[in-house]
Amino acid sequence: MEPREKPQTTVGELGESGVLARVLAQLSEASAVELGPGDDCAVLRHEGDIVVTTDTMIEGPDFRLAWHDGFELGWKLAATNLSDVASMGARPTALTVALAVPLETPVRLLERIAEGLDAACRALAPGCGVVGGDLGRAPVVTAAVTALGDLEGRVPVLRSGARAGDVVAYAGELGLAGLGLSLLFAEGLASDGTASADAVPGLWAAHPEVLAAQLAPAPPIPLGVAAALGKATAMMDVSDALSIDSERLARASGVHIDFSAALLERGFGEQSGVVVPVEAMLHGGEDHGLLATFPAAVALPAGFLPVGVVLEASKAGSSDEAGPTATSQVPGQDVARLSLDGETLIARGWDPYTVQYPGAA
Amino acid sequence: MEPREKPQTTVGELGESGVLARVLAQLSEASAVELGPGDDCAVLRHEGDIVVTTDTMIEGPDFRLAWHDGFELGWKLAATNLSDVASMGARPTALTVALAVPLETPVRLLERIAEGLDAACRALAPGCGVVGGDLGRAPVVTAAVTALGDLEGRVPVLRSGARAGDVVAYAGELGLAGLGLSLLFAEGLASDGTASADAVPGLWAAHPEVLAAQLAPAPPIPLGVAAALGKATAMMDVSDALSIDSERLARASGVHIDFSAALLERGFGEQSGVVVPVEAMLHGGEDHGLLATFPAAVALPAGFLPVGVVLEASKAGSSDEAGPTATSQVPGQDVARLSLDGETLIARGWDPYTVQYPGAA
Repeated sequence: MEPREKPQTTVGELGESGVLARVLAQLSEASAVELGPGDDCAVLRHEGDIVVTTDTMIEGPDFRLAWHDGFELGWKLAATNLSDVASMGARPTALTVALAVPLETPVRLLERIAEGLDAACRALAPGCGVVGGDLGRAPVVTAAVTALGDLEGRVPVLRSGARAGDVVAYAGELGLAGLGLSLLFAEGLASDGTASADAVPGLWAAHPEVLAAQLAPAPPIPLGVAAALGKATAMMDVSDALSIDSERLARASGVHIDFSAALLERGFGEQSGVVVPVEAMLHGGEDHGLLATFPAAVALPAGFLPVGVVLEASKAGSSDEAGPTATSQVPGQDVARLSLDGETLIARGWDPYTVQYPGAA
Repeated sequence: MEPREKPQTTVGELGESGVLARVLAQLSEASAVELGPGDDCAVLRHEGDIVVTTDTMIEGPDFRLAWHDGFELGWKLAATNLSDVASMGARPTALTVALAVPLETPVRLLERIAEGLDAACRALAPGCGVVGGDLGRAPVVTAAVTALGDLEGRVPVLRSGARAGDVVAYAGELGLAGLGLSLLFAEGLASDGTASADAVPGLWAAHPEVLAAQLAPAPPIPLGVAAALGKATAMMDVSDALSIDSERLARASGVHIDFSAALLERGFGEQSGVVVPVEAMLHGGEDHGLLATFPAAVALPAGFLPVGVVLEASKAGSSDEAGPTATSQVPGQDVARLSLDGETLIARGWDPYTVQYPGAA
């Protein structure tokens, strides 16, 4: 038996190759892999066109270590990138992960991040895994994930394909993640406004569903392929909020989306025993479920629930005639692309450079 | 005409969509692209297996804005990832780029980074380009690049294929980048030890070759494919230093590498008019050229110059019988895999978690 190292061994003490060995030990092999970590690149075999997406999570603006265990952080990193791949109608095949941390970071945190990445791939997208990465040094914990997917001969499902008459549908949790974040901001801050771990165990005990939705979301990744096979005309994942992301889809498609409060209530008014207000569904954000449009004549794939309809932009009383080539993406300047039961709906969502929140860097 | 905005508009003032529009305007389209930036993923068409690699550069440990113009930083980000793709024998097809910066960062810096990324792709790997990315917020400038390449039906050239009797060859600049870094540390620090821009214009005027090699390296990317077609048995790019990286290649292949000082001198003793000592070639680092081994009977592809020979590990007096499965990667513990004219050569190189240098975070 090797002597057990002390639990808080830091990356500065262990050095790059030691940290790398500990991280790699957490990872399972991806099925598309011809060559895994250890050379200059990983090598992958794909059947069809490749989709690729990248996303960064940085301590402070994007997460707080007081709230996120390393495992949950790794899980969320994987889940949020996998949902982008799914939303193209592709099967996720591989992640690359760049982690940069301060020297005093416990190696255990990186190990837990790797465990969470691997567990999320196995649970949400079996066959997908981490195939490569990079370790570095940064003033705060910094993680950048790139996800690849295989279209397997299918045509990608874009944001721009929604047509008037289509049904708007959603699959996954909706609004719970936003409720979780509100709860953390309400109960999880110290008196100086910084995030505190003190209340987190109590919040997990009292509100496990909304904490899980915020800290370790489980988007329905296989439904991306199901939607593509089920003739979805447009699809995207909801990361910023249903309102702002559906406005992006409506603009890209040159259409208008009218949500139904009754359909939202019926489909998502109670999730895992939690009552979710329509306001939270529309503007909560970080859901990472799949928003898609389908021709009215087609049955929705299992897992998708109807939430609205696609209308022609001009017939919905739009004051914005710009159509899909409009360049403005400023929320509120293009209000007529969205409505709720026929009433104009103003999108609200996340902008990393303008949103203000307590405890932010 | 739009009124010109003030030169130092910050990302916090402009917001995400404004910054994104400015960054996207700098980018050319990659030839493998079926769908570029703007949807949840980019879509790419490849002919053969895919290679993928990722690398992060963070202000402080990896670069200092006092020394690096944004253009050079973008260029180096592209070049260092392209060389990893090239070293597998693949043709680079696409980059994804995640940039996270403080709110007070001038938008112009991100624009210049994008210009540099695009220019490096056009110059070093025509047809490759930035296909997607992510913008976020961080306490220091943080860039994570993932590069993809197409093997076009070829077998990847791994680190593990070198065989006794092979010729060791190198293509690219060697040692100049390390001399550039030494010069910046000698002349480019303020009295408090932090990086200063004051001396940089003078250093560029006096020593353009070594500054360029350090700040905006130009690795011979197409020679990766040339080496693969030219029957290279093993290949990797030299990022940490020729000594430490060739030791990795020797260990992965279960062989010993003997460098020739005379061959190093003849091939790389003078580069662009700069005299480069063998010591700088072996231990300088950040060269990003291609280290490859070729069967002795094969002519070296144009651009590769011989620098040594591959020997059997046991016949070179190795005290380490572990072969390619050895897990230790600590420099100095496996000295017998490398020699210079038959004398044991101790590898030295870069470890982000243990290297100390002036002005580091």
